Order: sequence, then C-alpha cells, then structure tokens
Amino acid sequence: MFIQRLCIIGVGLIGGSLARALRRVGACDEVVGCGRNTANLEHAIELGVIDRYETSPARAVKDADMVVVAVPLGTMVSMFSAISDALSPQAVITDVGSAKATVVADAHQHLGRHLSRFVPGHPIAGTEKSGVAASFAELFENRRVILTPLLENEQQAIAKVTTLWEKIGANVVNMSVAHHDEVLAATSHLPHILAYSLVDTLAKMEDRTEIFQFAAGGFRDFTRIASSDPKMWHDICLANRDAILKTLGSFNTELAKLTEAVRQGDSQCIEDIFTRAKTARDKFAG
Amino acid sequence: MFIQRLCIIGVGLIGGSLARALRRVGACDEVVGCGRNTANLEHAIELGVIDRYETSPARAVKDADMVVVAVPLGTMVSMFSAISDALSPQAVITDVGSAKATVVADAHQHLGRHLSRFVPGHPIAGTEKSGVAASFAELFENRRVILTPLLENEQQAIAKVTTLWEKIGANVVNMSVAHHDEVLAATSHLPHILAYSLVDTLAKMEDRTEIFQFAAGGFRDFTRIASSDPKMWHDICLANRDAILKTLGSFNTELAKLTEAVRQGDSQCIEDIFTRAKTARDKFAG
Repeated sequence: MFIQRLCIIGVGLIGGSLARALRRVGACDEVVGCGRNTANLEHAIELGVIDRYETSPARAVKDADMVVVAVPLGTMVSMFSAISDALSPQAVITDVGSAKATVVADAHQHLGRHLSRFVPGHPIAGTEKSGVAASFAELFENRRVILTPLLENEQQAIAKVTTLWEKIGANVVNMSVAHHDEVLAATSHLPHILAYSLVDTLAKMEDRTEIFQFAAGGFRDFTRIASSDPKMWHDICLANRDAILKTLGSFNTELAKLTEAVRQGDSQCIEDIFTRAKTARDKFAG
Repeated sequence: MFIQRLCIIGVGLIGGSLARALRRVGACDEVVGCGRNTANLEHAIELGVIDRYETSPARAVKDADMVVVAVPLGTMVSMFSAISDALSPQAVITDVGSAKATVVADAHQHLGRHLSRFVPGHPIAGTEKSGVAASFAELFENRRVILTPLLENEQQAIAKVTTLWEKIGANVVNMSVAHHDEVLAATSHLPHILAYSLVDTLAKMEDRTEIFQFAAGGFRDFTRIASSDPKMWHDICLANRDAILKTLGSFNTELAKLTEAVRQGDSQCIEDIFTRAKTARDKFAG
C-alpha cells in the first residue's frame, strides 16, 4: 500500500477532497482526520472521507506515514509545534498552503529533525466554497500542484509527495518559494483582493439593493471569488504581504493609466490596453 | 402579427439573439438585417437569423414597423442620422446600448419627428463573445431589460418595446437615464475595466507565460469579461465616462484602505472588508 495511515489535519475543502481522491484510487489503508470542529469531523466520517478522527494533533499524527497539514496559514505555526514531538521518524509531511515563505519559516522553527521529510506543497485548485461538505474526489484532476522542496529534503520524501498528487491525476511542478509566492500573488491573491474590494465598494453604495439586482452573469463570474472564506484570505494577505503589495503596486499603476485615458478620452490608449488584455486572456484561456 | 417587418441594425451577439428569439416565438413575419460586413450578414441568413439584408441603413429600415439599433455606442449617432429620413412614420425604434445618456443625446440630435417612437433600452445580458455566430435564442430568458423612456415617448411605443422583450422571456423595468448609467457603471463597466487592467498588468510581467500557466479556475472566471470586444468597451468607457470615473474613484478609495490594512497588518480591518463582501456577494448570488 502506498500509504498505510494518512493523517489529514484540517478536513475542509482541500483536505477532504485529497482524502476522497486517495481513497478512490486505493492509495491508503486508513485515514485519520484532525480538527477542532467535531461536528465537521463526524460529518466527514458519515461522508466516508475519513475513518476516524482525533481532536488532538499529537494523537492524530501518531504512527501516520503521511501527514497533510491543510489548515489556514495563520494556524500553521502552532500546528507544526503541536505535532513535532509526536511525528513518526519516518513520516513524510506536506502542506497545502497558498503562500510558501511563511510556511517554510514556520517549519524551520518547529519541525526540527523532521524538516528533511517536510515537502511544502500547494495544489492550484479550489472553489469559493469551504468545509468537508464541499469536498469532492475530482478536485485535483488535471490541476497543477506546485511543490517548493527544501534544500534539507530527502529525495525519497520529495518523490513520495510527488507521487501522492500524481496518483490522483494532478500535474506536479517544482518551484522556488519566492517564485511561487510572486506567481500566486499575481494570479490568485490580487484577483481576490480586487473582487472583495469591488463587492465591498458596491455594498457601501446607497442604492446597493438595486445595484446587485442588475448585476448580470459577467458580474457573477467576476465576483465569485469574493464568496471565499474571509479568515483564510485574511491569513493569505498577511502571509504573502510583500509579494501582494508589489503586485498591487503594479496594478495600481496600470489602473491609473487607464483611468487617465478614460478621463482624457484617449481612444488609442484605451483600445490598446483592452486589445492587449483580450489577446493575453484568449491565449491563456485557450 | 406583433411585428410585420423587423429591422435589426447590427446583427451581432445581441441583435442576432433578439432576432432568433422573436422568430422562435413567432412574433415577426420578416427580419431584415443591416451591417457593413456582408460575410457576417450572409452567415446570419445561413443561420436562419435574418431573411435578407441591406448594407444601406436607409434601405434597411424602409417600411419596417420595428427597428432595433444594435450597433456599438460610438456608431449610434451616425446610424440615427442615416436612418432618420427613411424611417416609416409608424416605426417604433429602440436600441440596446450599454450607456443611455449619449444615446438619448444622439437621438435628440437626429431622430427629430421620430423621437416620440424611440424608446431607449438595454438588455442586461451578454457573453464575452461577439458576432452572429455567438448568438442564441435563449440569451434574454429571465434576464432584465432596462428601458429609459423619454418624456416625448408615446405610451403605445413604450408598450410595444416592453412587449417585444416580454414575449421572449425577459423582465422589463423602467429607470431614468442617469440612474441607469450609474447602476451599470458599478455593476458592469467598472468590473470590465478592472478585469482588462488586471490581465494587462500580468501580461506585462517578465514571467507572464508562467504566470498564466498557473492561473486556475478562479482567475479564469474573474478575467472572462476581459475577453469581451475591445472596440465595444472602448465606446462604453467614453460614452459613460462621468459615471465610470465616479465609481472608479469610490473603488480606488476602498482599495487604498485595504492595501493600507495589508501593509499595516491590520487584521480586523482586512477581515471586516472580506466578511462584508462575502456576505453581500452570497446574498445577491443567492
């Protein structure tokens, strides 16, 4: 068996979907869930996502050969601290955090002798929903998973985490921590900030009820990500603050240019920006 | 028959879908298309969207009892000028422009004695695609259509345009021109500007190829509207400039607050904004 005992800390959309997917391909014997919300964990048992659960992280990781830490970024440091002494000396550990520099710093601080077997990861997949009820086995099929292996990592640990994702249909790529954080700031964190900010702007308007009534399909798609979990995105904003502020700076410069072009009625500039954007978007969206 | 001869000037996504929908419910005898691109018009005949076409607007509107002007906002003024003398004295005229103040000004300038039968309209529906090939009869089902009737309008003309949309499943509401332009600036024009601006920002980055590779579903939804027709959106930006600049100003104020909260690590402020936005978005998206 690829994994004897899989421990999922944080049985939400990502952790739950990973457990479902691994079970479906028969890649693990037993799945132990861990979390603070026992109702959610009971529900995860009912849904067949996990076999049993522990509310104590130290008890949950006992004798697990694979540990996936799928908790919000702000909770990562205390979770590493809570499990470090209880981890088996063979356990391979990974996480699914959306920013990697802080997770790596947290791991350096607390995982000690386990660092060689901790391989940071980030599946580029998700929906705006949260919780185990929203999880599904197909979430990672044909999606990318970025690993940011550490210099300290054993090759065997990197290979095991790579296989974990490949077994469930994901495409694994390796990247440096800094590069991951920059790419994700641009493609994910900035869009979330803009969507939250736009909806909040509209929600503050006097005629907000009417405004939302006339929001059509384009607006619905555009703002879907503003329905994402506020606590999780708060954590991401703080964890990836530097890269986010840098990309926000670039965006503000471009938006100011476009705003000025609209103010001046500069047709050429407006059309150039829109045409470049459409070309780039059509190209990547295939 | 509700309409004997329907003239659609601009047989694209909106004009084409309207013709298809009206034919499907048997609301018109004959559909005459008008445009500059004869290949597109030939295609519209092949698709059964129109019966025949004219490239001269004046010839196209001859003896039509209903004329729908579905051309880009920047072309509206010359189109009104081109058809005014040729319109039948009974013709009811409407348009589908995304901004109404400029269209109304254009109509005042050129439609003269037909103004009493010109009822400005705007269906809140569309996709990021363009052209008659993208048109479909269901586009307006259960969608809202805003009419901004003029003081000069005959009640009979307003009733006819209202019925036109209701016959194909749309919900018609009336609104003042100024209010329409403000609501649309917030719910449609601002999101398009942000999406275009974001994609252009990313397209200018050195590692743009890699960046777009790691863009996931959320990004794809968020930027879908950046695949919309650049020329059409250029026209909208200039036609609704004042309302757009006002709503852009409000957005910039909110984004600056959020940016500062991220910079300062102000957890409370970040979570408050995200939570308010999620609540508002979940509420309107049902």
